Amino acid sequence: MSKRIEEFQKEREALNVVILERDDLNIKRFFALDSAVYREGALDAKTKEMLGLVASMVLRCDDCITYHVIRTKELGISDKEFDEIMSIGLVVGGSITIPHIRRAYRSWQELKE
Amino acid sequence: MSKRIEEFQKEREALNVVILERDDLNIKRFFALDSAVYREGALDAKTKEMLGLVASMVLRCDDCITYHVIRTKELGISDKEFDEIMSIGLVVGGSITIPHIRRAYRSWQELKE
Amino acid sequence: MSKRIEEFQKEREALNVVILERDDLNIKRFFALDSAVYREGALDAKTKEMLGLVASMVLRCDDCITYHVIRTKELGISDKEFDEIMSIGLVVGGSITIPHIRRAYRSWQELKE
Amino acid sequence: MSKRIEEFQKEREALNVVILERDDLNIKRFFALDSAVYREGALDAKTKEMLGLVASMVLRCDDCITYHVIRTKELGISDKEFDEIMSIGLVVGGSITIPHIRRAYRSWQELKE
Amino acid sequence: MSKRIEEFQKEREALNVVILERDDLNIKRFFALDSAVYREGALDAKTKEMLGLVASMVLRCDDCITYHVIRTKELGISDKEFDEIMSIGLVVGGSITIPHIRRAYRSWQELKE
Amino acid sequence: MSKRIEEFQKEREALNVVILERDDLNIKRFFALDSAVYREGALDAKTKEMLGLVASMVLRCDDCITYHVIRTKELGISDKEFDEIMSIGLVVGGSITIPHIRRAYRSWQELKE
Repeated sequence: MSKRIEEFQKEREALNVVILERDDLNIKRFFALDSAVYREGALDAKTKEMLGLVASMVLRCDDCITYHVIRTKELGISDKEFDEIMSIGLVVGGSITIPHIRRAYRSWQELKE
Repeated sequence: MSKRIEEFQKEREALNVVILERDDLNIKRFFALDSAVYREGALDAKTKEMLGLVASMVLRCDDCITYHVIRTKELGISDKEFDEIMSIGLVVGGSITIPHIRRAYRSWQELKE
Repeated sequence: MSKRIEEFQKEREALNVVILERDDLNIKRFFALDSAVYREGALDAKTKEMLGLVASMVLRCDDCITYHVIRTKELGISDKEFDEIMSIGLVVGGSITIPHIRRAYRSWQELKE
Repeated sequence: MSKRIEEFQKEREALNVVILERDDLNIKRFFALDSAVYREGALDAKTKEMLGLVASMVLRCDDCITYHVIRTKELGISDKEFDEIMSIGLVVGGSITIPHIRRAYRSWQELKE
Repeated sequence: MSKRIEEFQKEREALNVVILERDDLNIKRFFALDSAVYREGALDAKTKEMLGLVASMVLRCDDCITYHVIRTKELGISDKEFDEIMSIGLVVGGSITIPHIRRAYRSWQELKE
Repeated sequence: MSKRIEEFQKEREALNVVILERDDLNIKRFFALDSAVYREGALDAKTKEMLGLVASMVLRCDDCITYHVIRTKELGISDKEFDEIMSIGLVVGGSITIPHIRRAYRSWQELKE
């Protein structure tokens, strides 16, 4: 894992702590729900991560994309499967997604090294 | 298939004819690409349609959603799988997607009748 | 209340029934959370509805806007307060919100008749 | 001009009256500004309408698109110029713009009849 | 105030100077309007800043969020009120807002130190 | 050209290489199409770049904006024409575009130095 991704994860976790220490019930419920929907169910966890990745791509949220790229890598998505998710995101979301696709491939590359 | 969905498909095809008769090379290339990315590849067609559906949901495009709901039904997605796609779209995209989720379930319901 | 708004509410409730009958735990949790965040707390319910209205306006979700216009009316927002919420939504979201502002004023007008 | 477009214009103007009768200074200023930016300047009015049209297309605002389609037609945009604006909107905004492009071509077609 | 926020404000003001020196009448009018809508009126300034904050949150504009977080702090919003604004933004805008909520809480934290 | 813009271009090209080395047919087709729509046609290249710029502005994509700012500069857009494109983007997209307009003017300024 690259230094850039390690730092992303460290900052992400540090700020999650800041939020959850506020102890707001509704925010905590949302965070719980945000984990729950990706859990193995009728659809397997791998498919669900792919859904999360493409949704993050078309909404052009870099942090969300990085998170799901890490997760899809952990769950064993192949290079070719990754390309196909990117191509659907690109066609649905248009050229405006290209900068995010560039950064997604950089993360993907770094996770393989 | 309900009357509403039949009319959706008829209007959709009629307007596609209007566009493609204009014979603009770049627009035709885009339409070809828009079909190509959903074709069976490293990912099967069913998974790709689910990706198209969740992307359409978070971008809140009713016509796109209706189209992908029809396709996921044709490809044999189960009720429970459909629910899980909806729940991911809902959590990623927020309450702002609820009106679109309502209409997606209406289409799903009508396709089963 | 106008016929248009009555029909909006009837369809909205009918489709909510369709969704909730599916009995998907995560979707039900989201719906519960969507009610919870607008409940009286450190901020009063009226302020929270105004937040929901302006958020729906800049995200350009007509059904969400109609719902929050009804709620702000019920909670006693004045004409002038309504104008000021609209003007903030308009300046933040740009001219692209104008069609939604037109329809929001139509709903507001109909609720007063 | 088709009946559909006439009705669009009638409703648009009727609701503009509702808004402007409210006499909110900031909203009136915004409406004035929204006219001002499209006036002949360093760029001619035709180019500015094209900018308004492509911006409305990628933001997927049907009413805004219909309005700018009418204006570009009035200002003498050719069929081929219209196609090229659509193709840029389509590539920048992705397949999610296709339903709006369908309706834009329908309006364009109706304005020619 | 933290160094990060000071730098944000310095860059923001430096670039505003660049824009306003261009002396474009319409851009200057927009900037004037953008100040006007947040001024005390039927709604007090504090409520208006909360509206600006939640609108910026659901539109996921970090600079806009930072600006409004600073303003809500200056106007005396409490921790609990801040949490409730965040929770509405989160539920309306979905998990896609979480990275922005993380950074909003970081700014809020830094302003308290 | 400033160091910031040189680095932008270097990173952009390096990541394009990463993507195109993956040799995914659909992604390559999209990239080809993304060049094709800006080529001289019924509309001249300068007008097409302006369309690309305003579309990127209202969609608030900084990398896309920087790219089109560079291109419009290369194609000889004047200061006043640039202002008018910005003012349309600002009015259509709202105050939420202001941070992007700030950075667009910074790039414009740096390209002139």
